[in-house]
Amino acid sequence: MSRLPTRPGRLQKAPEFFLTRDAMTLSRDDRRSFLRRAFVAAGGAAGALALPKAFAADGDAGDPAILTLPAHSKGLGQPVAARPYGLPSKHEDNLQRRESPGLTRVSAASVSFAPLQGLFGIITPNGLHFERHHQGWWDIDPAQHRLMIHGLVKEAKVYTMDDLMRMPSVSRMHFIECGANTGMEWGNVAVPTVQYTHGMLSCCEFTGVPLKWLLDDCGADVKTGRYVLAEGADGSGMTRTINMANALDDVLVAWAMNGEMLRPENGYPLRLVVPGVQGVSWVKYLRRIKVGDQPFATKDETVHYVDMMPDGQHRQYTSIQEVKSVITSPSGGQILVDRGFFNVTGIAWSGRGKIRRVDVSVDGGKNWKAARLETPILDKCLTRFNLDWTWDGGDAILMSRATDSTGQVQPSIGALRKVRGTRSIYHNNAIQSWLVSPNGEVGNVQIG
Amino acid sequence: MSRLPTRPGRLQKAPEFFLTRDAMTLSRDDRRSFLRRAFVAAGGAAGALALPKAFAADGDAGDPAILTLPAHSKGLGQPVAARPYGLPSKHEDNLQRRESPGLTRVSAASVSFAPLQGLFGIITPNGLHFERHHQGWWDIDPAQHRLMIHGLVKEAKVYTMDDLMRMPSVSRMHFIECGANTGMEWGNVAVPTVQYTHGMLSCCEFTGVPLKWLLDDCGADVKTGRYVLAEGADGSGMTRTINMANALDDVLVAWAMNGEMLRPENGYPLRLVVPGVQGVSWVKYLRRIKVGDQPFATKDETVHYVDMMPDGQHRQYTSIQEVKSVITSPSGGQILVDRGFFNVTGIAWSGRGKIRRVDVSVDGGKNWKAARLETPILDKCLTRFNLDWTWDGGDAILMSRATDSTGQVQPSIGALRKVRGTRSIYHNNAIQSWLVSPNGEVGNVQIG
Repeated sequence: MSRLPTRPGRLQKAPEFFLTRDAMTLSRDDRRSFLRRAFVAAGGAAGALALPKAFAADGDAGDPAILTLPAHSKGLGQPVAARPYGLPSKHEDNLQRRESPGLTRVSAASVSFAPLQGLFGIITPNGLHFERHHQGWWDIDPAQHRLMIHGLVKEAKVYTMDDLMRMPSVSRMHFIECGANTGMEWGNVAVPTVQYTHGMLSCCEFTGVPLKWLLDDCGADVKTGRYVLAEGADGSGMTRTINMANALDDVLVAWAMNGEMLRPENGYPLRLVVPGVQGVSWVKYLRRIKVGDQPFATKDETVHYVDMMPDGQHRQYTSIQEVKSVITSPSGGQILVDRGFFNVTGIAWSGRGKIRRVDVSVDGGKNWKAARLETPILDKCLTRFNLDWTWDGGDAILMSRATDSTGQVQPSIGALRKVRGTRSIYHNNAIQSWLVSPNGEVGNVQIG
Repeated sequence: MSRLPTRPGRLQKAPEFFLTRDAMTLSRDDRRSFLRRAFVAAGGAAGALALPKAFAADGDAGDPAILTLPAHSKGLGQPVAARPYGLPSKHEDNLQRRESPGLTRVSAASVSFAPLQGLFGIITPNGLHFERHHQGWWDIDPAQHRLMIHGLVKEAKVYTMDDLMRMPSVSRMHFIECGANTGMEWGNVAVPTVQYTHGMLSCCEFTGVPLKWLLDDCGADVKTGRYVLAEGADGSGMTRTINMANALDDVLVAWAMNGEMLRPENGYPLRLVVPGVQGVSWVKYLRRIKVGDQPFATKDETVHYVDMMPDGQHRQYTSIQEVKSVITSPSGGQILVDRGFFNVTGIAWSGRGKIRRVDVSVDGGKNWKAARLETPILDKCLTRFNLDWTWDGGDAILMSRATDSTGQVQPSIGALRKVRGTRSIYHNNAIQSWLVSPNGEVGNVQIG
């Protein structure tokens, strides 16, 4: 990275809006009007922004915000531990996980999306981690919580939280993505912002005991017992089959995320972490592991989380989240206020390994450039990418295409539809395209 | 890591207490009485804990918490986005950053300590990041905030937050440690828990623009200008000199921590990130960078943050945080309830590079074993270590000793005192020792 551009462009973040079904079903032109109205409603705050002011080194900075000392430069501020558990600035109130009332009818059995457009790096702060509940969330007393391991084991056992947390533990950073992430986009462009297209995605440092150590502790028969069942303690009776190969590899029985105990919305006090596999298998409020000799064929894997194929058949047990990426800024709903330089940035991930490269196009896929990947690049974890871009004020279509360490390349939506059709809900890892219009508005479009 | 121990021990976390000067100045025996009283006050919750129960695989689990379905397994829980910005479980209320009223007289100009004894992995959640304020904290309006760069530059400039956040950015994980961390331990054992001995330490993923890119943007004279001054906007007028070598290496002008904007307590909207260097140089509310040809000799580096040497002279500009580690569990104030297996775990870090190894002793330094280091091992970042240990119920003294990638080895307190004396406040990187008594209480002792 050499000298900075002398004239960075400016980007107006879209006012966050509460997406309604009306907004979701707007045609593209209508949606752009909607965004424009939303922008006007925001009061044209862009007018207050200024380019860097150059001035003689010994001269007058000229900027009142530099020359006039504000109250906070002259007074005594708030004391320490005024908030024993800290919170974001009041100026960041707008950055929230949000639900889409049009998506599901019972909000308790629903989804809130992480605001990817406003996040940085790869870590998702716990307060903004996406939510997916099948029967609402609970704040379970850890002193009463138990994990039972049984089935094809020599000695079935019941563990308390205290038992588990005394064991040797491992901490690893992994992404978690709902299998239905980007699921609304199979047929057509459905939602305007990256929060709603890709926001069922988060990434944390998880801490727990490897499941294989617990299976070993119970004397599991890992030859006949080729599968384990994981069951959650909430009212949904969530049950998922995990391959024994995964269980013996990198699956964790986890109690912590990002250095502290799991949040209630994310399965406190215990959840399964199944790196690379869709979120539904990361069973929350984990209460039971059963070792068996065949898949358990539960409702949550035979009726739900199956892929509708073009021939009308459902594909089952497709749970690995394939290589995928998305540009988070500029992204749908944002507005480029000025021509000039922008840092095009986004995230890439693969359930099969590490990200090897990300290519970015600003012309709808005609030309591609290798993006700068940030480090560390970790297994089954988000990787942040960046590309310098100067917007000339014309139409532009921004796309990112990830390649993982197995050589898999993220497909276009067209290529994916040829195999999978348009009626699926799950496992859409297509390239995402954002159209920048000459008026600076960024919208969701589908290319290829 | 092979088979788990069949009989894990149990550990009673100490009730958190609000440390008063009385508690701080207790003699060791008195302090142990204090801890015992605190434990009794907690109501002996340990009695509710149970070892893993084994039962025939097809038999009766026997545990009412497994056999009787609780309310949360039968009902509908809380809806999504009930908390648009999420918070920890109510059962974790006790894990807080805490101030020590005895440490400083004006709490606004003081410290709150991170609860290291209850944290996992390497990431510190933002809500528990330690605080150090010199004039209290503010929640500054980012639209009004400016950064001026001037001095030995071709073109002085004033940047808005919007200008900065449009630039290419970098995200990196680094520890931040106050130079005064563990400072109370120079003379004698001073405080009973790891929260107070080592809790001015946190670790986050920081996002910002490299300072070198901004210096380049202003045409800084990096040959004559061997130093930069960093100034904060809060009432303390915090000013620190940074070597140009650091500025051109890995220093960031940062706006984000752990994926979201900085917290007000940690410098929102802009702070300097100076990897490996003591926290005071990570100037919060950063408003000004001046390039100069000599150290600026500000009050915060000539009067404060200097090292009192045995000969009565003060050593200045010793700002790198040397190789250091601490066992966070078992640690002072905790109580081992049973003999048996414990995962001895802690964190290690060095301002000079990566952690190469950590050795752990359970017998006061007679014998040492290499601990298991967790990955990724990153530059100027925390590294989590673990060691299997079976407590036989006798006296034990737990110690950890880190070695960094430059070959530096963490010194004993005795060796450090030979060079530095006992009257310092800053830059104590000595080995920490925890005494486990036959009654299970863990206390702070100094060995060597």
